[in-house]
Amino acid sequence: MELLQIIDIAGTAAFSIAGVFAAMEKKLDLFGILIIAFVTALGGGTLRDLLIGNVPVSWMHQLHYGLIVMVSAITALLFTNLLKNLHNILLLFDSLGLGLFTLVGIQKGIDLQLHSGICILLGTITACFGGVLRDVLLNQIPLIFQKEIYATACIGGGMVYFLLLYTGAQGWPIDIICILVIVLSRFLAVKYNWSLPVINKLKNERNEDN
Amino acid sequence: MELLQIIDIAGTAAFSIAGVFAAMEKKLDLFGILIIAFVTALGGGTLRDLLIGNVPVSWMHQLHYGLIVMVSAITALLFTNLLKNLHNILLLFDSLGLGLFTLVGIQKGIDLQLHSGICILLGTITACFGGVLRDVLLNQIPLIFQKEIYATACIGGGMVYFLLLYTGAQGWPIDIICILVIVLSRFLAVKYNWSLPVINKLKNERNEDN
Amino acid sequence: MELLQIIDIAGTAAFSIAGVFAAMEKKLDLFGILIIAFVTALGGGTLRDLLIGNVPVSWMHQLHYGLIVMVSAITALLFTNLLKNLHNILLLFDSLGLGLFTLVGIQKGIDLQLHSGICILLGTITACFGGVLRDVLLNQIPLIFQKEIYATACIGGGMVYFLLLYTGAQGWPIDIICILVIVLSRFLAVKYNWSLPVINKLKNERNEDN
Repeated sequence: MELLQIIDIAGTAAFSIAGVFAAMEKKLDLFGILIIAFVTALGGGTLRDLLIGNVPVSWMHQLHYGLIVMVSAITALLFTNLLKNLHNILLLFDSLGLGLFTLVGIQKGIDLQLHSGICILLGTITACFGGVLRDVLLNQIPLIFQKEIYATACIGGGMVYFLLLYTGAQGWPIDIICILVIVLSRFLAVKYNWSLPVINKLKNERNEDN
Repeated sequence: MELLQIIDIAGTAAFSIAGVFAAMEKKLDLFGILIIAFVTALGGGTLRDLLIGNVPVSWMHQLHYGLIVMVSAITALLFTNLLKNLHNILLLFDSLGLGLFTLVGIQKGIDLQLHSGICILLGTITACFGGVLRDVLLNQIPLIFQKEIYATACIGGGMVYFLLLYTGAQGWPIDIICILVIVLSRFLAVKYNWSLPVINKLKNERNEDN
Repeated sequence: MELLQIIDIAGTAAFSIAGVFAAMEKKLDLFGILIIAFVTALGGGTLRDLLIGNVPVSWMHQLHYGLIVMVSAITALLFTNLLKNLHNILLLFDSLGLGLFTLVGIQKGIDLQLHSGICILLGTITACFGGVLRDVLLNQIPLIFQKEIYATACIGGGMVYFLLLYTGAQGWPIDIICILVIVLSRFLAVKYNWSLPVINKLKNERNEDN
């Protein structure tokens, strides 16, 4: 389906550009920035491929992924201001990518006849762990462990996907619904500033001890 | 042997709970805490599986591991105070887990007919590198690289295992001895505050240069 | 060809020693230092092996690698002062290793009939990502993302290699030329303090906002 291919390209580009912006804040050099863009965009799928044994990993054979990362990263370096003004479009692409990558991960798990819970985890890893690897390389605690409803949107979308699948639905309609649930959750989360509860009972007790 | 299965469950739960406590100190949200619990408990075995090519990795087929992690992590979140008072029992489970996971890693290496030194390394990775990955994700230098006799206990237990194997012993008795050596080393290390020497010759010389 | 084997040993030892020095600065204990030496020397090849599915990874069967790491690391611990005075020889070995490891990675990619761009990336990962993993474990942003012409030398050497290959050249002469290009680039970069541009347009704009 061609729509999914367009989303794939737009999502990969948006992830790559997000990687460039994160890398710039840490004063990396050109090589560092390109690697961070690559890891942000393709790291989640790479980790998924490693965990399920799909090697050589996807981007070694599907060369267009590396190309999209390089072109969009260099575009982000050359037209930083312009892209910053396109914030909302980038957020849309990023959310669409989040949805599609989750779906791709889920379907790889289904192909291997893995349990639905593992499939949803694979989808979440595909969509979110590029950002986790980026943050590890940039020497900071992964953002999605702290603040953002990012992984939660993927898990929710994955659960909806399997619920529909169990009711007998199949094919591209439930693919689209899965992606839309994730995009919508992400959008609402950003708009209304939703976040998961931070749990630091340990911390509080320590202070009481003093 | 059922005893080993009980240790496996208790050890996985203890590792998961230790992950929850570590994650709480860093003010992670619910998703972050669950991921850290998962990585702490299952990350070492996952890394071992990747290095030897045992993919899809174990927990994708043996679903009870993920279940143990989730249940024990949520228990730790709900009953934080209670579990903190069970410190000694958790230390016992943690040490038993350390011993068993080392043994499991060693035996995976033996199955692949790898050299005994590599087997011991695989055992140590299985038992210790979940904690290493946890610390990397929490943005701190891995604890076992700095202070604790943790890996050393695993290496010692592994050496005892192979020594006994070479003398012709086999089966569950040497399994138990291997685990006991590790548990005992760990216990004595905690009790008497043993640690490996920190080597900072470089540092001293620098200061002298000033 | 025996020369390449000698370079392989010398390069592995130099990487291992560099790992020991980096670990000492962070006040690691003996186990931590040995792991960092191992990761610095063999981590890049391990990551490459995982990405292409060459498992169990190389050092599990080629035991001399682990041995070289251990012997050179312990030598570095015992004769720290002596080795610091051999700075230039270590830099030579390190650069030779950088060249050879790049070549090895490229050739593994060619064996799998991967695209030349992917082969160069595999060479760069082999040569440079041991250092990246070391820096991640030592809780700092990877050095090669910030300052050093290290990866760039590998990429340049790899491009020269494929250019020569396309002209019909083959065998050890182009192997040697590839290594020499990398060694020379690295040497000149250290001598003349070359570095890639740091790009922080984002940073500047932020300041202007204030």
